[in-house]
Amino acid sequence: MSAANHRVLHEALTGRRLTKLEYGHELPKLQDRLLDAQFELRKQRTRAVAVIVTGIPGAGRSEVVNELLNWLDPKFVTVYGFRPPNEVERQRPPLWRYWRVMPPKGRIAILHAGWYEEFLADSVRATERDSVVVKREVERIRRLERMLVADGVAVVKIHLHVSPELQARRLRRLARDKATRWRVTAEDRWMARHYARVERVFEHCLEQTDQRPAPWRVVDGTDRQHRAYEVGKVLLAGIDGRLAGEERPVRVKRPAAARQRALRKLLPTNHPGPRVAEEEYDRELEVLQGRLALLSRKRRFAKASVVVALEGMDASGKGGAIRRITAALDARQYRVVPISAPTPDELARPYLWRFWFQLPPRGNYTIFDRSWYGRVLVERVRGLAAPADWQRAYEEINEFERELAEHGVIVAKFWMSVSKDEQVARFAERDRNPLKRFKVDPEDWLNRKSWDPYQEAAADMLALTHTSHAPWTVVPADDKRWARLAVLRSLCDRIEARLG
Amino acid sequence: MSAANHRVLHEALTGRRLTKLEYGHELPKLQDRLLDAQFELRKQRTRAVAVIVTGIPGAGRSEVVNELLNWLDPKFVTVYGFRPPNEVERQRPPLWRYWRVMPPKGRIAILHAGWYEEFLADSVRATERDSVVVKREVERIRRLERMLVADGVAVVKIHLHVSPELQARRLRRLARDKATRWRVTAEDRWMARHYARVERVFEHCLEQTDQRPAPWRVVDGTDRQHRAYEVGKVLLAGIDGRLAGEERPVRVKRPAAARQRALRKLLPTNHPGPRVAEEEYDRELEVLQGRLALLSRKRRFAKASVVVALEGMDASGKGGAIRRITAALDARQYRVVPISAPTPDELARPYLWRFWFQLPPRGNYTIFDRSWYGRVLVERVRGLAAPADWQRAYEEINEFERELAEHGVIVAKFWMSVSKDEQVARFAERDRNPLKRFKVDPEDWLNRKSWDPYQEAAADMLALTHTSHAPWTVVPADDKRWARLAVLRSLCDRIEARLG
Repeated sequence: MSAANHRVLHEALTGRRLTKLEYGHELPKLQDRLLDAQFELRKQRTRAVAVIVTGIPGAGRSEVVNELLNWLDPKFVTVYGFRPPNEVERQRPPLWRYWRVMPPKGRIAILHAGWYEEFLADSVRATERDSVVVKREVERIRRLERMLVADGVAVVKIHLHVSPELQARRLRRLARDKATRWRVTAEDRWMARHYARVERVFEHCLEQTDQRPAPWRVVDGTDRQHRAYEVGKVLLAGIDGRLAGEERPVRVKRPAAARQRALRKLLPTNHPGPRVAEEEYDRELEVLQGRLALLSRKRRFAKASVVVALEGMDASGKGGAIRRITAALDARQYRVVPISAPTPDELARPYLWRFWFQLPPRGNYTIFDRSWYGRVLVERVRGLAAPADWQRAYEEINEFERELAEHGVIVAKFWMSVSKDEQVARFAERDRNPLKRFKVDPEDWLNRKSWDPYQEAAADMLALTHTSHAPWTVVPADDKRWARLAVLRSLCDRIEARLG
Repeated sequence: MSAANHRVLHEALTGRRLTKLEYGHELPKLQDRLLDAQFELRKQRTRAVAVIVTGIPGAGRSEVVNELLNWLDPKFVTVYGFRPPNEVERQRPPLWRYWRVMPPKGRIAILHAGWYEEFLADSVRATERDSVVVKREVERIRRLERMLVADGVAVVKIHLHVSPELQARRLRRLARDKATRWRVTAEDRWMARHYARVERVFEHCLEQTDQRPAPWRVVDGTDRQHRAYEVGKVLLAGIDGRLAGEERPVRVKRPAAARQRALRKLLPTNHPGPRVAEEEYDRELEVLQGRLALLSRKRRFAKASVVVALEGMDASGKGGAIRRITAALDARQYRVVPISAPTPDELARPYLWRFWFQLPPRGNYTIFDRSWYGRVLVERVRGLAAPADWQRAYEEINEFERELAEHGVIVAKFWMSVSKDEQVARFAERDRNPLKRFKVDPEDWLNRKSWDPYQEAAADMLALTHTSHAPWTVVPADDKRWARLAVLRSLCDRIEARLG
């Protein structure tokens, strides 16, 4: 489908039919190839497939899903249907529930209308929608799909269409039989009555969300056998990896030299940073923890939620800062998520998956000890992610945090900026003190060797992901006490600003 | 703690204190051993630890949790707190939310009061509780813990106690400071006012739920340092595996010979079973699917949920029967869960974990293509589970299904009983037909060699797990069509009986 093709839905109604003979001849061959393709997908485990099936009522959406299931080895296919969001889903950004069911590499997930469900329904129903809202929804979907494809999830989008006469006939037949009557919803009947409008709106929606990495395929739903055959071919192309068009290479935004220089100044030098005396620390800590405790108990806080991400070199004091935060909170109100190397399950999904999974419900905190920024820090420096992958991550991260912020999540990010000398001193202390032995990781010394590349990566990260909706706080961390107070103070300020 | 010890809580208040010197001397040694034990736990990955901390208000429950976190390597410890169940949790049996957070082998989970939260609160609050309900709650907890321990999860239960004077003093101090005031809830104040009663009720609750595999340890919360030291020792014993007493060996219930013989008659012979002609099948299928569709759309169905489990030899027609069920349902109303060999993530948990995870919300179906019965079928026959493990599984499964039934879940279990000859014929057909190749598994032929042990295992299973709350339906399955109708009919009957 191309944006230039107007009336593309209508034109899809070629009325082509397959004779029973053609069908009997072609379909087994197609199914044969589908099974082969699925077997390869499973064997290689480098890609996953997400299938979306939309269409107008009566075009055969659920029949198509059933056919797909019949053709494939159902052990490695999962089907998800989505109802209006429940209590748990409503507390997270709209895409959360789709992220939760993202298939791992080697598998196929059929998501029915998936993330198009609300978009299509809202577009058709509302007589006038705020163009800013619509634009944002389109952007959200397009970005999601681009990221999925880049992370190895083929997105197969099939839209089914039929003529108004056939639609009416099919709905009538379903409604006549009491066993199938429930399949015809009020929504379906409304859509059938407004066929022309629905066709126009759907066409527009498809055009806006059609893109090379995840193109729409419109299938004529008139003849069941022809429809099945066409859908099978689209799916095969998706599993084979032949569906997505060549993506334009990502333009890597480089931070302007001046900005980069300015940021470098925030990063550690060997000048001693600010310090605080022990008595003042004790006093101030109590005050700040009290402030945080009170803020987190406010009635208005029950509608917000907080995502805290702490980043910094090894031994920069992330864990200590986190414990000063959690000491002020109710145990049922927060979760601390330490991020280390991804598990096989996590590696099989798009890299943001494990972070989406941990988003807090309203009134709660999730505190990440290291975070999704690993992509542009350790994975970049150690070459664990390909350059193209970590380079696109800046934009993907900004989009992720924007979705959080748009949903009312307070995103507080801290870079704990420790100097090289102080880090050495802390490592030595850890080696001396047996009770800190669990903190000693042979990788720490390895990471130390890459001090300069890490600092460069941190400067890029600060420059490219410091946004109004999710600003960084750079914390001079050579004095642990000072750093802990700074984190607490900044966190309180952010929450206070939000609660008003 | 032993059931004979009355006033055991009061007697725990020894008033022992640690001097700062003792504490400074002993605690680092203890922490050292804790870190070692955690490291071993992590290295061996044969066991997990679930920690429960209860106590009266003011005894220091949350301080203790914080201390535990400070001593251990926090990367491998997860802390969970539980609020009143939310919408998603309320739709599942009460234990569901605890199963969801069960730690994998190698890890420690701190669950605060965990599954004792509601039990203690209800026991203390209600002036008179139905003894049948209480007895059932106690049984549920005792069985859960026994299963966890048998499956490699050490259950560490710590109860903290202080005198009424100290409790009052601590609560007063917390309430005075506006930063800590929120920690004192109305519940806490009520409990403090009814100290004697609370002490008596808690004592009784602990006695009832104290058992050798998961004993209670009562810790005097008077002196913070002594308390920390004692808690650390209990945890160490738990991680080391020294806490659980020797379990009495499981008595293996064997089905009576007569019952066993009667059941064997239900299992396949080489007599041809019932058959149905194609036209009659088509007609009847439509009627039954219509009936199921209507039942599943009833308003009263929205309060029920259905768990279907299909078991049977390879090629007994489970998948075909499932597709005839799902064709009658709304796509958003069911999930089909094919069960094969457990993943590493699943192997790291108690064996029922992956089934608990998949329980449907109200108004929904989960259809298991093979199920938790694998434990007493394939795992028994192939020697994948130790005899003691599959032998205790009958009781564990009955308890699991009872919890589902008590929560209003309709549990429909089908044994698809195919004869040896018919199975051979179907294998041959699969080998011939390339489109059924995904169904051919080298293991199938392997399983065939164990035909007799499988039939024996099936007979035991039917005899030992056919309960009033979750009865088996044995379906003669040599004629696929007849079998599909039988499954649909039985399912409809069960649902209809429930909805009334």
